[in-house]
Amino acid sequence: MQMITALSPLLRPKSVLLVNKLRTKPVVDAIQALLSYVWEKYPDVKVYHEDRPDIPEGVHVWKPGPDAQKIDLVVTLGGDGTILHASSLFKVGAVPPVLSFSMGTLGFLLPFHIDDFAKAIDSAFEGGAAVLHRMRLSCTFQDKSGSQIGTDFEEWQVMNEVALHRGSSPHLNTIDVFVDGQHLTEAVSDGLIVSTPTGSTAYSLSAGGPIVHPSLSAIVLTPICPRSLSFRPLVFPSSSSITLRIGDRSRASAGLSMDGQISHVLSPGESVTVQASLYPIPCINRSSIADPDESREGVGPGKEDDWVRDINNLLQYNATFRSKALLRHSRT
Amino acid sequence: MQMITALSPLLRPKSVLLVNKLRTKPVVDAIQALLSYVWEKYPDVKVYHEDRPDIPEGVHVWKPGPDAQKIDLVVTLGGDGTILHASSLFKVGAVPPVLSFSMGTLGFLLPFHIDDFAKAIDSAFEGGAAVLHRMRLSCTFQDKSGSQIGTDFEEWQVMNEVALHRGSSPHLNTIDVFVDGQHLTEAVSDGLIVSTPTGSTAYSLSAGGPIVHPSLSAIVLTPICPRSLSFRPLVFPSSSSITLRIGDRSRASAGLSMDGQISHVLSPGESVTVQASLYPIPCINRSSIADPDESREGVGPGKEDDWVRDINNLLQYNATFRSKALLRHSRT
Amino acid sequence: MQMITALSPLLRPKSVLLVNKLRTKPVVDAIQALLSYVWEKYPDVKVYHEDRPDIPEGVHVWKPGPDAQKIDLVVTLGGDGTILHASSLFKVGAVPPVLSFSMGTLGFLLPFHIDDFAKAIDSAFEGGAAVLHRMRLSCTFQDKSGSQIGTDFEEWQVMNEVALHRGSSPHLNTIDVFVDGQHLTEAVSDGLIVSTPTGSTAYSLSAGGPIVHPSLSAIVLTPICPRSLSFRPLVFPSSSSITLRIGDRSRASAGLSMDGQISHVLSPGESVTVQASLYPIPCINRSSIADPDESREGVGPGKEDDWVRDINNLLQYNATFRSKALLRHSRT
Amino acid sequence: MQMITALSPLLRPKSVLLVNKLRTKPVVDAIQALLSYVWEKYPDVKVYHEDRPDIPEGVHVWKPGPDAQKIDLVVTLGGDGTILHASSLFKVGAVPPVLSFSMGTLGFLLPFHIDDFAKAIDSAFEGGAAVLHRMRLSCTFQDKSGSQIGTDFEEWQVMNEVALHRGSSPHLNTIDVFVDGQHLTEAVSDGLIVSTPTGSTAYSLSAGGPIVHPSLSAIVLTPICPRSLSFRPLVFPSSSSITLRIGDRSRASAGLSMDGQISHVLSPGESVTVQASLYPIPCINRSSIADPDESREGVGPGKEDDWVRDINNLLQYNATFRSKALLRHSRT
Ligand SMILES: NC(=O)C1=CN([C@@H]2O[C@H](COP(=O)(O)OP(=O)(O)OC[C@H]3O[C@@H](n4cnc5c(N)ncnc54)[C@H](O)[C@@H]3O)[C@@H](O)[C@H]2O)C=CC1
Ligand SMILES: NC(=O)C1=CN([C@@H]2O[C@H](COP(=O)(O)OP(=O)(O)OC[C@H]3O[C@@H](n4cnc5c(N)ncnc54)[C@H](O)[C@@H]3O)[C@@H](O)[C@H]2O)C=CC1
Ligand SMILES: NC(=O)C1=CN([C@@H]2O[C@H](COP(=O)(O)OP(=O)(O)OC[C@H]3O[C@@H](n4cnc5c(N)ncnc54)[C@H](O)[C@@H]3O)[C@@H](O)[C@H]2O)C=CC1
Ligand SMILES: NC(=O)C1=CN([C@@H]2O[C@H](COP(=O)(O)OP(=O)(O)OC[C@H]3O[C@@H](n4cnc5c(N)ncnc54)[C@H](O)[C@@H]3O)[C@@H](O)[C@H]2O)C=CC1
Repeated sequence: MQMITALSPLLRPKSVLLVNKLRTKPVVDAIQALLSYVWEKYPDVKVYHEDRPDIPEGVHVWKPGPDAQKIDLVVTLGGDGTILHASSLFKVGAVPPVLSFSMGTLGFLLPFHIDDFAKAIDSAFEGGAAVLHRMRLSCTFQDKSGSQIGTDFEEWQVMNEVALHRGSSPHLNTIDVFVDGQHLTEAVSDGLIVSTPTGSTAYSLSAGGPIVHPSLSAIVLTPICPRSLSFRPLVFPSSSSITLRIGDRSRASAGLSMDGQISHVLSPGESVTVQASLYPIPCINRSSIADPDESREGVGPGKEDDWVRDINNLLQYNATFRSKALLRHSRT
Repeated sequence: MQMITALSPLLRPKSVLLVNKLRTKPVVDAIQALLSYVWEKYPDVKVYHEDRPDIPEGVHVWKPGPDAQKIDLVVTLGGDGTILHASSLFKVGAVPPVLSFSMGTLGFLLPFHIDDFAKAIDSAFEGGAAVLHRMRLSCTFQDKSGSQIGTDFEEWQVMNEVALHRGSSPHLNTIDVFVDGQHLTEAVSDGLIVSTPTGSTAYSLSAGGPIVHPSLSAIVLTPICPRSLSFRPLVFPSSSSITLRIGDRSRASAGLSMDGQISHVLSPGESVTVQASLYPIPCINRSSIADPDESREGVGPGKEDDWVRDINNLLQYNATFRSKALLRHSRT
Repeated sequence: MQMITALSPLLRPKSVLLVNKLRTKPVVDAIQALLSYVWEKYPDVKVYHEDRPDIPEGVHVWKPGPDAQKIDLVVTLGGDGTILHASSLFKVGAVPPVLSFSMGTLGFLLPFHIDDFAKAIDSAFEGGAAVLHRMRLSCTFQDKSGSQIGTDFEEWQVMNEVALHRGSSPHLNTIDVFVDGQHLTEAVSDGLIVSTPTGSTAYSLSAGGPIVHPSLSAIVLTPICPRSLSFRPLVFPSSSSITLRIGDRSRASAGLSMDGQISHVLSPGESVTVQASLYPIPCINRSSIADPDESREGVGPGKEDDWVRDINNLLQYNATFRSKALLRHSRT
Repeated sequence: MQMITALSPLLRPKSVLLVNKLRTKPVVDAIQALLSYVWEKYPDVKVYHEDRPDIPEGVHVWKPGPDAQKIDLVVTLGGDGTILHASSLFKVGAVPPVLSFSMGTLGFLLPFHIDDFAKAIDSAFEGGAAVLHRMRLSCTFQDKSGSQIGTDFEEWQVMNEVALHRGSSPHLNTIDVFVDGQHLTEAVSDGLIVSTPTGSTAYSLSAGGPIVHPSLSAIVLTPICPRSLSFRPLVFPSSSSITLRIGDRSRASAGLSMDGQISHVLSPGESVTVQASLYPIPCINRSSIADPDESREGVGPGKEDDWVRDINNLLQYNATFRSKALLRHSRT
């Protein structure tokens, strides 16, 4: 899978899905400004929104599912959670390119500030936008006998991670981990995280996992507070299939959350199997609107890596001890 | 505080509290054998038990609290959880020496195997038993205005740790940490652990904390899955007072558990203050019954350190990669 | 790149290179036995060895380099270091399949025990051996002006890692890290490791890096004792180019070692650039001789993963605290 | 040992030792200004300096050793290394209080900025300065037979740590660790660090150790790149005696450095024994000159903790991901 591609100028979007969770004043205003801009400049574009009472005027209702209206471009406004939610709307089939705007707070999944919307929209409509295909994971569930629970259609897709956690149970979980059907280990812990490279800077990072570049196709397994000195994060090829099975004698069930949404409780004997999804999320990158003049030496437009900036600016990666060296620290 | 002392032979126990949680056949049998042995050899000893329908014959009911019958020796049978429970029964005033038997599974807090009970009981009754005074922490609670909640009497005592955790809330907590009244940091995380040295091999270890020798007087602060690259475990002198206050804008409350028992939920603005307790738990050590002949060079009886053996045998501390070196690993 | 393939039965080796570092009695005996077996069963095979005074009878001298005699199969006897050495002999062009025997101690790179040599040799000669293409890294060096040092030919290839370290200098290094020409961070540390997935269980693991499955194509960057709380291991796609440049004001030079061999000292301003090599090492896998009867459920021969066994058996990955649970730990 | 005390106003210093390593213009100027101030305000004070050609006028030569001229106050100018050097001058007997000035760069051991020298000097001379007694470690050396090497007098004292490291040897060390004569573990690693609480923010921190408050009396053992998944930092009571013995079959010797100065090479069979020194270093604290008006709520002067500020300001402890939240991150 090629991880970074450019949007073709021929595929000018005809249908746009607008996704937002909050309805605060700045979000509402931003949506109005964005709609005016789009409709003035690209009058034939149809805009959709999830079904909610407060849907903006002129915008059509969109319902997810196998019969959903085809969407050419998704535009999200809000925090990282908003794009995670947008991802959850596309469970079957390919996902349209996603253009994500922050309302002020930075985020790993939020390449554009809302103030730059015109430039970003144009780049998406007129072609040439650089797209990072962020890998997703899909999950299926098995009962004690190992049989699939639910129909094929009810597959789940995550962008960050699938996490099992004891939640508010006082007791540790026992989880058997299988890789491609082979027993890897029995984890006695608070839980386990199966993460995409995108999710490697989310929960997995907090639990001690490595930072994985989102253009690598890989699956990360990170334990949460394991009762073992010798548990380390593991990185698998994206062709791997990881099964987490609650041990038969586990003292606790495990709540399963997907991208932070708790969805299932797995009881002893039940399992979840996680694999790379066939449908990554094409995310439009900041470098799409990078000003060639601003680019630093050796870094051409489109070549520049949002990720390098993000781990420095957002995570304060390797912030050295010396950066306040010149401050005066005792005062008369 | 002197951390290791010897029980005086003059203080032969007159009243013994028997603590067990499980009532499985091996436990019931062991209790019978132990009672017969004690009553035959030390006929004047009165044995107590918490109030339960299945209390053994000849054993008196004991109720915890400020007016509780005085106890000279506590004997526990079961896992680490049993001694944690025994500790929770002594919230006010000094704790009598504790003699702990495992039923087969090893534990950090379980120096004696039930099969060795005669030797261990004798050592406790006839003096000379080595006692490790395990530090405890006591907690008080404050409301949003900072006023104490509850009366002085309702203080809590823990042997392992006080832990705050988001539990099954999907959202991260924001917790302000104060040391001796000074703001230390704001933690955005799954939770925080304030641990004794004893507890440093329990939850704190799983969360990445250091292993602290139980004869050191210190308090360990360990974050659980912090959203920060630069959070590290901290070790404070036991004279420190640590306050954990749920941030006013925290998106989640935090469940507080003490030695693994969930007791309170703290809402935004509320806090818990943790300090070294005045009442450590005197735990009778394995070296009390060490056979002088078995002792290795340089390690006299009473000097030998259970802890060194435990971190090697139980935690498999620093198990090297070579220990299976002589195994054959491919077979014809 | 497909990471696991099968050796074709058509390509029966005509020339075999024998690699060993030690000349202990067991090694000499094993070589004799192996040679007898090969020559009896495959009489037309020519066997080579590096030029050393004690080369076995009937074996030809082999010299590495661009004009080296073509080799169809490499056989190594010894520790992990022996196969690392074998790798270093093939700096230019494709590497022949490698069959590695341990002399008793296990190793990640040593799938076969010497006692099983007949079965392993047959599987390599008669086809069907499963081969894992282990990624290598190649290095080039730049002077202060950024110009290449040395000719194109003098490229270096490593199987585990390239490591920069202050060595016995008392002072910390300052190293600038660039990814695809973009400045990533300035590392103040004892050193840095750029590792293959194979090397992720070697030095990088000791320095805190994740364990990466060897069939994933990726590059791991792990700091050695960084003066920063917020340095984490990073995992890059194998298409990345990583440049490590000693800072102009670095107080120390840095010794560069490749697979544990110290080769260069880089002074302030000098740099090394590391990229995936075009020439992985095809390593014959243990599953090549797996007995189908022994295979566990769901794991067909050739599908079974040496790596899963190795991280459990060799690294004692996630060895739980309970495995000695049934031992008796106090004795009368 | 009480860790924080106040200098008595009765003990006005009569003899001051000036310590600096660098002779840059700012240092020379600062020394002149400081000398003028001291001599004008406290004319009877005698000032000393180590023997160097460029000793300032009016300053006397001072030679370390058992017969050294008695010193009442040490004043250091420079980086953390300068105070480490000052510590190394006092190997026998009690150490006078130390007042340390930074020349601009912050440091954990550098409470005062040179611009504040008048205020700090006055506080030291006129009493009331708060003094933190920083624990030191002392070392003795043993040969293969276990006999002491050197005379009693040749004891070494460190303020940060004793570190063993393979240095530029390509091979791992094997080091046996003993605690109070009992074998704790065999470490196969790059090296080991035995650190004071003061040193817990130095090399030990880089190697993954916990941060220990300097007023706790404890010894930290931190491995450097161990070949084991299950090595964790350990914290011992200060009464412990730690012996590090190079394994008889260790493939490498180990360079021993004390506070960053390489001093010995230990060969297989040789050992170093580390214990708390009888002579801590009394370091004058920043709170000595804290302006009561500046103090924050709940933190009285003298109670305020430099350390809390330092781990936040210098180490950027737990710097959260959100601190740049309001920055705009894409620009038109
Ligand atoms: N202890 C922890 O670190 C926990 C983390 N999470 C993460 O939160 C995610 C859900 O996010 P929200 O719905 O926004 O919940 P939220 O509002 O509770 O935010 C979680 C935080 O994670 C950040 N985040 C989300 N995805 C990220 C990514 N790929 N890289 C870097 N940072 C990222 C968000 O910006 C936010 O700061 C989950 O997928 C999980 O990864 C969830 C629970 C605990
Ligand atoms: N992820 C984790 O590691 C978690 C650990 N815990 C620990 O469990 C403790 C409660 O124990 P139980 O009631 O037995 O619950 P439990 O039956 O769930 O056991 C927890 C495990 O911790 C062990 N343990 C308890 N205290 C220990 C100590 N001081 N040193 C070494 N190991 C210790 C027990 O032997 C048992 O294996 C809590 O105080 C907490 O420390 C609780 C929740 C999560
Ligand atoms: N602190 C550490 O962990 C250090 C590790 N090394 C490693 O040693 C390697 C050189 O090995 P030798 O020449 O045998 O030196 P060596 O004889 O000093 O052995 C180093 C150890 O690493 C093991 N090893 C080597 N490659 C491995 C791999 N890919 N996965 C798992 N274990 C592996 C060896 O079996 C041996 O136990 C270097 O490439 C480097 O990775 C080198 C220096 C320090
Ligand atoms: N990888 C690492 O982190 C290494 C650290 N060191 C440390 O350097 C110390 C020697 O210091 P210098 O002579 O100044 O050498 P240096 O000039 O090489 O500085 C080492 C760094 O450590 C800092 N430092 C020293 N003591 C500290 C403390 N107690 N807490 C926080 N930071 C501290 C210094 O300010 C400096 O930034 C050694 O005692 C050792 O702790 C030495 C070698 C490697």
